[in-house]
Amino acid sequence: MPDRQRRSRVARLKAAVLVSGRGSNLQALLDAGRTPDFPVEIALVVSNLPDVPALERAKAAGVATKVIDHRGFADRAAFDQALDTTLRAADVEVVCLAGFMRLLTAGFVEAWRNRLINIHPSLLPSFKGLHTHRRALAAGVTLHGCTVHFVTPDLDDGPIIAQAAVPVLGDDDEDRLAARVLTAEHRLYPLALRLFAEGRLTLAGRRVLVSGDVDAGGALFNPALK
Amino acid sequence: MPDRQRRSRVARLKAAVLVSGRGSNLQALLDAGRTPDFPVEIALVVSNLPDVPALERAKAAGVATKVIDHRGFADRAAFDQALDTTLRAADVEVVCLAGFMRLLTAGFVEAWRNRLINIHPSLLPSFKGLHTHRRALAAGVTLHGCTVHFVTPDLDDGPIIAQAAVPVLGDDDEDRLAARVLTAEHRLYPLALRLFAEGRLTLAGRRVLVSGDVDAGGALFNPALK
Repeated sequence: MPDRQRRSRVARLKAAVLVSGRGSNLQALLDAGRTPDFPVEIALVVSNLPDVPALERAKAAGVATKVIDHRGFADRAAFDQALDTTLRAADVEVVCLAGFMRLLTAGFVEAWRNRLINIHPSLLPSFKGLHTHRRALAAGVTLHGCTVHFVTPDLDDGPIIAQAAVPVLGDDDEDRLAARVLTAEHRLYPLALRLFAEGRLTLAGRRVLVSGDVDAGGALFNPALK
Repeated sequence: MPDRQRRSRVARLKAAVLVSGRGSNLQALLDAGRTPDFPVEIALVVSNLPDVPALERAKAAGVATKVIDHRGFADRAAFDQALDTTLRAADVEVVCLAGFMRLLTAGFVEAWRNRLINIHPSLLPSFKGLHTHRRALAAGVTLHGCTVHFVTPDLDDGPIIAQAAVPVLGDDDEDRLAARVLTAEHRLYPLALRLFAEGRLTLAGRRVLVSGDVDAGGALFNPALK
């Protein structure tokens, strides 16, 4: 049996990506999803805002899109209920946040526990929250980076799947540093999602243990430095 | 003029290293100090405890040692005064903390401002304080590391000179992780001290800017990954 046929018989995990803006991490996931051996199908892109570039990226990739405008809902719980309904209707198995700028309710997070993944632009636990690049520069760190983690009700505090480091250079401003971290994000997010889809992640307390090739794992954690 | 003679006419910066125990980072600095082009002479090793292995390492390297037993002083200020007197008598120009387990007074720190350097076993600002490896494992980070920084009166909060990252692996316990970070420390501390001695560091607020070859700088910040 040719390789292509063998692969095509393996069901890929159905993922939704939640976006609010330009969708550069969405693009990295879409690009990964187009490679034949990537174990995840990006099946749906949901935006809480209409007319954002991320939606165009999804359409260009032939991926279904849905706008759930948060301004049309009375409260967060009602928005999250609509989101949950949409995801379940699409048989989504894993949800990736990619620049999604809405706080999710604890109820939604619990309902998707261990199937809800986010990427945060810092080496957590440093610099939780917003404006991470500005704060990293102000703190004077020489290593900065990004973190893919499971989402829990506490902000930027869930179990860490993978991290990547990049150097901070002397002539960096916020934009230059953000661009360098973003390059690492675009490599890290697909790799972390692949580990999840391949069933290689095990939770042990707050630690996420990765089974399989440790060397590949080690390189993975620093894609910007390979 | 042969290289050796030319180098011997360049005065090396005189450093003291403060220790309290095994002195593995001291050993890395002593080893660096023996290479002919290293711009720092480890001129004095001071311990606040007698009979620690670090003192034996210094003696084996032919470096002067001094024990200033903190238990013989009425308070921290008196101990720090004796320490300061010892350092000045030896014409020390830069002081390196290497597993030195005494808190220094603000007065001492101010007197040696920008000439007092420490290495901390975490990627600051994550995991200030003690037991960093245990806490990194508990937090589930996949990247951990070490930081060389100027000492300020606030604990583990001074301007960062250099950082190095190492992966956290699935079968790590505190000892295995500590050993991996220590290997990075032994490379990072001499490199950071070299940058200082070569006059390549400039303070800009809390940031330390490094002049010269950026590529070398970038690699330096991740010695464990080269």
